Amino acid sequence: MMRRMPAPVVRFLFDFISPYAYLAWRQIHTVVERRGATIEPVPVLFAAMLNTYQHKGPAEIPPKRVYMFKDTLRRAHRLGIPLVPPPTHPFNPLLALRAASIERPAPLRRALIDALFQATWGGGAGVAGAAEVANAATAAGLDGAKVVSDASSDEVKARLRRQTDEAIAQGAFGVPTMLVGPELFWGFDSLEHLDAYLGGEDPLDPVLLQRWSTLLASASRI
Amino acid sequence: MMRRMPAPVVRFLFDFISPYAYLAWRQIHTVVERRGATIEPVPVLFAAMLNTYQHKGPAEIPPKRVYMFKDTLRRAHRLGIPLVPPPTHPFNPLLALRAASIERPAPLRRALIDALFQATWGGGAGVAGAAEVANAATAAGLDGAKVVSDASSDEVKARLRRQTDEAIAQGAFGVPTMLVGPELFWGFDSLEHLDAYLGGEDPLDPVLLQRWSTLLASASRI
Repeated sequence: MMRRMPAPVVRFLFDFISPYAYLAWRQIHTVVERRGATIEPVPVLFAAMLNTYQHKGPAEIPPKRVYMFKDTLRRAHRLGIPLVPPPTHPFNPLLALRAASIERPAPLRRALIDALFQATWGGGAGVAGAAEVANAATAAGLDGAKVVSDASSDEVKARLRRQTDEAIAQGAFGVPTMLVGPELFWGFDSLEHLDAYLGGEDPLDPVLLQRWSTLLASASRI
Repeated sequence: MMRRMPAPVVRFLFDFISPYAYLAWRQIHTVVERRGATIEPVPVLFAAMLNTYQHKGPAEIPPKRVYMFKDTLRRAHRLGIPLVPPPTHPFNPLLALRAASIERPAPLRRALIDALFQATWGGGAGVAGAAEVANAATAAGLDGAKVVSDASSDEVKARLRRQTDEAIAQGAFGVPTMLVGPELFWGFDSLEHLDAYLGGEDPLDPVLLQRWSTLLASASRI
């Protein structure tokens, strides 16, 4: 706690499926760069996290699905960020996640992720098909056909699986997740807590935290 | 949208099990009274919502349980609200929820709910047993033994079940939930959206909302 981190790396774990990940991606650069830290984008498959915990995503509970979109619209409005639902949702995000996992210089990778998020939540054609992923890559100044072809290699497929497995091993249970070393921040609304942490101002009381983690249950649903 | 509500009633749906419900309870009076609205507290059993959707609560996913408490501690610190874990968690909240469901004049009911939340999340002895519920009621200026006895009547038990069933029928899937007529706000962090709504400043775009609610899936996990 209260430990100042000189110039840490913030690992930003995301899936294009999540409008909260989109809103966080649009905000995180300002937060992190102001603290002199750098961002490492880490595409992960949200569905694999749900499978791990046999949990349901917000889009899988009918009234929560509607509420989630109202909530993201209201937040986007507050932030002045355009938010438009993609042509279909849920959609298969694998190709887009793989494309975003290909190694390339940081500015190009950021531009590609920008374009894929824009295609998904910024009023574009979505990223559910190869043509849409290629178009987003082209809009980012890359060779769209090559991005799709590279994204379909066994190596890149394995990379996305590894990123997802590692995220789950580090305790990630949703997206967006921000990791600074082992410290995990979940959700768009944790950006202010990440900001305080990066500034050495995390208010967590280790005594209370310890009490919580050793607390016993006196009832359960089962 | 943008429709001004003259002096609406905000139904505050809560379960003592949730630290987010505690934080929201500590904040909601200011938000609602500033808008000239009134609060109707509605105790509900969160576990029944999870059962309805075969969903897991945050305390049932191990890394989310730890994160949830860190998150509530950080938020409580930001708000200047004391937050201390109860002696056990999860615990059986039924008696406390029933006690809070007994009809009585609004100021006394609010004092009782204050005391029960305080016993749970404000460093008290919890509300898992009859003695703790009675003590909290006594601290609120009520006859503790009578509160416990009244709370155990068939009528009050049925009332809590009815409140929970009605909440689920109205689309509630978690706590805290705030309802203004049919409009639902979920979670501590939706208070600012509730506030805007009460002020006739809800920015929701009905066209986008309609598009979202009729959107088709192009993939699913199953």
